[in-house]
Amino acid sequence: MDAAARFPDSVAILGPGLLGGSLALALKSDFGAAVDVRLWARRDAALQEATGAADLLTNDLEKATRDAEMVVLATPVGIMASLCSQLAPYLRPGTLVTDVGSVKGSLVRPIREALSRSDVPYLGSHPMAGSEQTGFKAARADLFQRAVCILTPDESNAPADIERLETFWLRLGCKTLRMSAEEHDRKIARISHLPHAVASAVVRAALAADPTAAECTGNGFRDATRIAGGDPGMWAGILLENRDQVLAALHDVSSQITELVEILRRLDEEALRRYLDAARSLRKHVPAAR
Amino acid sequence: MDAAARFPDSVAILGPGLLGGSLALALKSDFGAAVDVRLWARRDAALQEATGAADLLTNDLEKATRDAEMVVLATPVGIMASLCSQLAPYLRPGTLVTDVGSVKGSLVRPIREALSRSDVPYLGSHPMAGSEQTGFKAARADLFQRAVCILTPDESNAPADIERLETFWLRLGCKTLRMSAEEHDRKIARISHLPHAVASAVVRAALAADPTAAECTGNGFRDATRIAGGDPGMWAGILLENRDQVLAALHDVSSQITELVEILRRLDEEALRRYLDAARSLRKHVPAAR
Repeated sequence: MDAAARFPDSVAILGPGLLGGSLALALKSDFGAAVDVRLWARRDAALQEATGAADLLTNDLEKATRDAEMVVLATPVGIMASLCSQLAPYLRPGTLVTDVGSVKGSLVRPIREALSRSDVPYLGSHPMAGSEQTGFKAARADLFQRAVCILTPDESNAPADIERLETFWLRLGCKTLRMSAEEHDRKIARISHLPHAVASAVVRAALAADPTAAECTGNGFRDATRIAGGDPGMWAGILLENRDQVLAALHDVSSQITELVEILRRLDEEALRRYLDAARSLRKHVPAAR
Repeated sequence: MDAAARFPDSVAILGPGLLGGSLALALKSDFGAAVDVRLWARRDAALQEATGAADLLTNDLEKATRDAEMVVLATPVGIMASLCSQLAPYLRPGTLVTDVGSVKGSLVRPIREALSRSDVPYLGSHPMAGSEQTGFKAARADLFQRAVCILTPDESNAPADIERLETFWLRLGCKTLRMSAEEHDRKIARISHLPHAVASAVVRAALAADPTAAECTGNGFRDATRIAGGDPGMWAGILLENRDQVLAALHDVSSQITELVEILRRLDEEALRRYLDAARSLRKHVPAAR
C-alpha cells in the first residue's frame, strides 16, 4: 500500500450544503487547478448561492459525475441511494463513490444495489465536522482541518480503494479512523445522535413552560444546547436511519437520569459526587478542542 | 433612587475561586486605588496562588471584613452561613452582604440568621459567569463583562441597597435582572442545574460502556458536555441545595425523552421533525453569545 495513494484529479460533490460546500471550497483552496471540482445541486437557488465554489456548478447529474474519479454524496442520507441509481451509468470503471452521511449501516447495501456496478466501489466516510449551521452560507475551506473522519470499509473494499479514500481525507487535513459500519453507527449514536436528541429534550424541558428563563442563560446553557439549533428535517432523517442504536442510547441515558433522581431523593451527597466525578473522568477521553 | 448609586470603597471577597478571584481582578483592573479589595481564603496555598490579585490577601476573617462596605461570599454555598456567623461582629452598620452562589432560596434565611444583625442587609447576587473551570487559575478580570447577573431582593431589602448592589454589578459590566429567590431557583434549575446534570448523564451513557467512542467526537459532543467537566464537589452541593426544583426539571426532561422514544418507535418522521423544530424555536429565546 502507498503511504500516500493517488489524489483524485476530478471530484463530483453532490449537495452544496455545509459539508459538500466546504469540501468544494477546501479542494479548490488546497489543490487549485490540480483537481477538477464539480458541485451538483438540485435547486437553482442553491447553485446560485455556491457561485465560484467549484469549476462546474450544475443541476445536471450527468455533467457533474461523468468520468469523475471520485463521487462524494453530501445530500441528506435519505436520497443518496436514489441519486446513485441515476448517476451509475455515467461513471467510469474504478470511480470511488463515498458519502459524508452521519449514518452508515443502513446506507451500504442500498447504495451498492443502486450503483449496481461491480467496477464502481462504494466506501463510506463520515467527517465529524458538522455543526448546527446548515447550507452553503456556513461552508468554510478550513472546515475539515483537524476534524476526525471515520472510514467504514468492509471486506468487499479493495485495500487500494481504502488507501485512496484515506489519503483524500488526510490531505484535506483530517485525522482518519477506520471501523465497520456497525461500529460507526453504535459509536456515533452515542457521541453525536444521543447528545443531539437530548439537547432538544433539555431545551423543551427548560423553556417550554417559561421561555423567559432564557434571559438568565450563561455560556453553559448556550454551549450545552447549541446542537439543538440544527436543521430539524436533516436530524429527523438521521435519527430515524439510526433508530435502533439511538433508542438503545436513549434507554441508557434514561437509566442514568433515573439513577441521578434516586441519589437526589435520598440526599446522598457522596454518591452524587461520585456520579459527577465518574462523568468528568470519562469525559477526559475526549480529545482536546481542535 | 440614584441612577448610579454609590460604588463601595472597600470590598471583602471570601473565596478566591473562579468567581471570587475574577471579582478581585475586575475590581482592581477597573477601579484601581479607588476601591480597597480584600480577598480571604482559608488555605495558604489558595492565598499563594492569588498573589497580587487584591490589596490584602488573608486567611484572617476579621482583617478581611472589618469595616468593609461590601462583603461578597464566593465560597461553596454550603459554608456561607457558617462564615456569616463568624464575620458578623466585624461588620460596620450598613455593610451590604451578598453572595455569588448558584442557589438562593435555601440561603436567604440561614445567612440572615447567621448575620443576626438588622443593620447589615443581605441581598443575593448570581452572576451567570461560571464555567467548568474552577480555582483562581481560571480567574479573569473580564469574566463579568456582558454576563447576566441576577439579583434576588425581597421585601426586607431597602430600595437603596438594591440600587447599590445593582450599580456594583452594572459597573463591572454585567447586565442585571431582578427576581425573587424562588423564581431564581426555579429558572436556574432549568437553564443551569438541569443541563449540568443531564450533561453528566449523557457522558456516562455515551462513554461508560465503550470509552473509545470518545475518539470519534467532534465539536458537538465537546460543547454539549463541556459543563460535565465541572467540579463534582461544588456541583453536588448546588444540586442538593436546589433539590426540589432540580427533581422537577429532571422529571420534565425524562418525560421529554420518553416522548422522543415513542416517536422513534412508531417511525413518525413528521412528529420527530416537529419535536426538533419546537426545540430549535424555543432556543431562539436564548440571547446571542456574549
